[in-house]
Amino acid sequence: MTISFDGPPIEIDTRPAVLDQFTVDETGQAGQRPSGVAYPADADEVAALVHWAQATRTPLISRGAGTSLEGHLLAQGNELIVDLSQANSILDISPVDFTATVQPGVTRTQLNAATAEFGLQFTVDPGADASLGGMAATNASGTTTVRYGGMHANVLALQAVLPDATVVRLGRAVRKSSSGYDLKDLLIGSAGTLGIITELTVRLHPIPEWIRSLRISFPTVSAAVDAALDMIGAALPVSRLELVDAPGMIALNEFRGAGYAESPALFIDIESSSEPAGVAEEQEIRRIVQAHKAIDISAARTHTERHALWEDRHNLYFALKARHPGSQFMVTDTAVPYAQLATAVDTATRTGEELGLDVSVAGHIGDGNVHTIVPYTDLNHAAVQEFSARLVHHALAVGGTATGEHGIGLAKKKYLREEHGAAVDLMIAIKRTLDPLGLFNPGKVLDA
Amino acid sequence: MTISFDGPPIEIDTRPAVLDQFTVDETGQAGQRPSGVAYPADADEVAALVHWAQATRTPLISRGAGTSLEGHLLAQGNELIVDLSQANSILDISPVDFTATVQPGVTRTQLNAATAEFGLQFTVDPGADASLGGMAATNASGTTTVRYGGMHANVLALQAVLPDATVVRLGRAVRKSSSGYDLKDLLIGSAGTLGIITELTVRLHPIPEWIRSLRISFPTVSAAVDAALDMIGAALPVSRLELVDAPGMIALNEFRGAGYAESPALFIDIESSSEPAGVAEEQEIRRIVQAHKAIDISAARTHTERHALWEDRHNLYFALKARHPGSQFMVTDTAVPYAQLATAVDTATRTGEELGLDVSVAGHIGDGNVHTIVPYTDLNHAAVQEFSARLVHHALAVGGTATGEHGIGLAKKKYLREEHGAAVDLMIAIKRTLDPLGLFNPGKVLDA
Repeated sequence: MTISFDGPPIEIDTRPAVLDQFTVDETGQAGQRPSGVAYPADADEVAALVHWAQATRTPLISRGAGTSLEGHLLAQGNELIVDLSQANSILDISPVDFTATVQPGVTRTQLNAATAEFGLQFTVDPGADASLGGMAATNASGTTTVRYGGMHANVLALQAVLPDATVVRLGRAVRKSSSGYDLKDLLIGSAGTLGIITELTVRLHPIPEWIRSLRISFPTVSAAVDAALDMIGAALPVSRLELVDAPGMIALNEFRGAGYAESPALFIDIESSSEPAGVAEEQEIRRIVQAHKAIDISAARTHTERHALWEDRHNLYFALKARHPGSQFMVTDTAVPYAQLATAVDTATRTGEELGLDVSVAGHIGDGNVHTIVPYTDLNHAAVQEFSARLVHHALAVGGTATGEHGIGLAKKKYLREEHGAAVDLMIAIKRTLDPLGLFNPGKVLDA
Repeated sequence: MTISFDGPPIEIDTRPAVLDQFTVDETGQAGQRPSGVAYPADADEVAALVHWAQATRTPLISRGAGTSLEGHLLAQGNELIVDLSQANSILDISPVDFTATVQPGVTRTQLNAATAEFGLQFTVDPGADASLGGMAATNASGTTTVRYGGMHANVLALQAVLPDATVVRLGRAVRKSSSGYDLKDLLIGSAGTLGIITELTVRLHPIPEWIRSLRISFPTVSAAVDAALDMIGAALPVSRLELVDAPGMIALNEFRGAGYAESPALFIDIESSSEPAGVAEEQEIRRIVQAHKAIDISAARTHTERHALWEDRHNLYFALKARHPGSQFMVTDTAVPYAQLATAVDTATRTGEELGLDVSVAGHIGDGNVHTIVPYTDLNHAAVQEFSARLVHHALAVGGTATGEHGIGLAKKKYLREEHGAAVDLMIAIKRTLDPLGLFNPGKVLDA
């Protein structure tokens, strides 16, 4: 059908076969069939949709590449999907300003392909080829956060359509501003519940002259964690600092026919402005890991070697899938203070044993961010839920957070008050102020 | 007098001689005499004050070290000052977590004195020995922002008392979280209009093994700016990247009896994890500045030498004061995209000439942040106001911001809508939701 309401006419697709494609996400959970899907091209078309949604009381779920891991995109009733994946133009790349301005459907690999010719990169890397609008909406981060920060640090300004259909610009495309309230960061991570992002200006970083990748095996998780924290304490320019535990390395050996030490490993990138500086820094890292009884060190120097080294880390999920054919997977995500990291990994491993689950732990260890990958079937789905709950309770008990980067979505709403206490009432008050009709991604993040 | 209202009894000092000390700030502007001043020790006492303020409809101005440059702290009617300078305990330093938890009255030098023994530093350096609560309230940044970010990046979690007297904790003491709305960053920069900060957990960074400071003279501002941007483009680990223009260097020569080149200069810190890496990076910086026709390069290696080099930069204000005895000074603060930096400096210089003002420009050039220091007397106060207005309009016209780090306070409210458009209405809506009685620092940042 076509709607035409206080703005340009918008096509809405209501064919069941199309809508059924929007009932699942990467959580493996199923949502309801949405009432329709629209593909607006820009803020004006989104605003027209919002006017229509107000008049018809139709709730809206905004969506980018659809790579959410926490059910942000699943319809629960008669929501209309606002699919921004086709609003995917790169509007501007300004090498002098180290910025790019993009539509929300632009993916990170699309942007990086365009900025490479200027020697620049967009650094936030959540693994999936997510859209930048979706990454901002869910406050994505990933492997490079230890050096470059996540979306809060890398989005300078946003254009968004509010639930009252106003088009606003939040933040400014400068390195710093103390002008007015920080609404840009309020929208980042709000998962489409406060506004629909229609444009972003992001920071770009120089692609460094010298990059080296290392894979280092350790006798224990504690040794790997201690080595990682020593690197941070020595102000070494690590730009990726990832942990894969022994079960993960065993799965990789099976998957790749490799012969890696079947013990916890760090995957590291070191980035430097010049070869002499980088070589000195690599030596310092080698000194640190040897002090923590590293079992072996493998270094990748060329682009091809580095790609191969990191492909293992990226293949972890597929390696575990191959090891557990027919299983679904839950990927949990908590973050804890550094001092609690080894305990958090140990808690995951022990809790898995207690519940009869085959748990692998990976993590953005430089951020205190622990991911566990747990295969399950219909037979032990309850055990997986219990596993996730225990991990979250542990993280919260030691001062951590229920989610470092995947977001609250649907599955983790139940932990919101345990983590934030009375601040949840403030979140609800803000949601109700901006969206009194409750039309923007209702029931996600919080109930208001 | 003593108030006792739904909490511990609180002393309020109402002696006129005491209150008169709170009528001026570093802007040189005068506010009204406040109705009283209280010195609460913690969140419970602040909450008790807020309950009393609600009952008596007394507006509150929260205050730390009192170093605001934009009138944030000036009373405009019968406000009560909530002076948190005595709530100045360092509650925890956790070297493993690279965090410290402090009361809001702790100053940055106080915290750095305490963390030094662990080889750690709190990096945000606005120049003044501000309190951490005040720095968070105004979103302070300063010389090291180019590498370490400002308060948004360095405050992980806050405790605050809201206008309804609820004590909330916002954010978590971890490196990342995507749990719920980002209310921590909403409070940062809100200048006490949305909450009174009663505790902060901040990031600490390792004090690097190797630091070198450079002072480099250039033939033109453009050459200095281009060299600075090339350093950023080469991913060099500069942690301070400051500009002083020719009038500033001339004033420093007079003040110190020095013989520096009377042309624009960059003041730089390079920080590295080891001497070999640092030496390589310094060489690369020397290559860059020579390509931009540097006139001379002065390097400071020891702590004493480095201190002397930076003392000049810190003395700039005093040098200008000595040059203009009897004058008051306006220190303006705008930020622009990198590509507009040289033009912004040029605009400041030319506008000063047109208005008959003796303008010096300094700036955190790595952040696109331009400060101008302008002496004035009662005779040309109007010209200084006009100067500031023109600079702000220029910054906004080229995509910049009315204030990079000093905040909106009182003087820059008039530019808020020019910068943020309809987003100002959202700011007002949030203010009214949190503070319907308008008791928290009324009339600052915005009128609601």
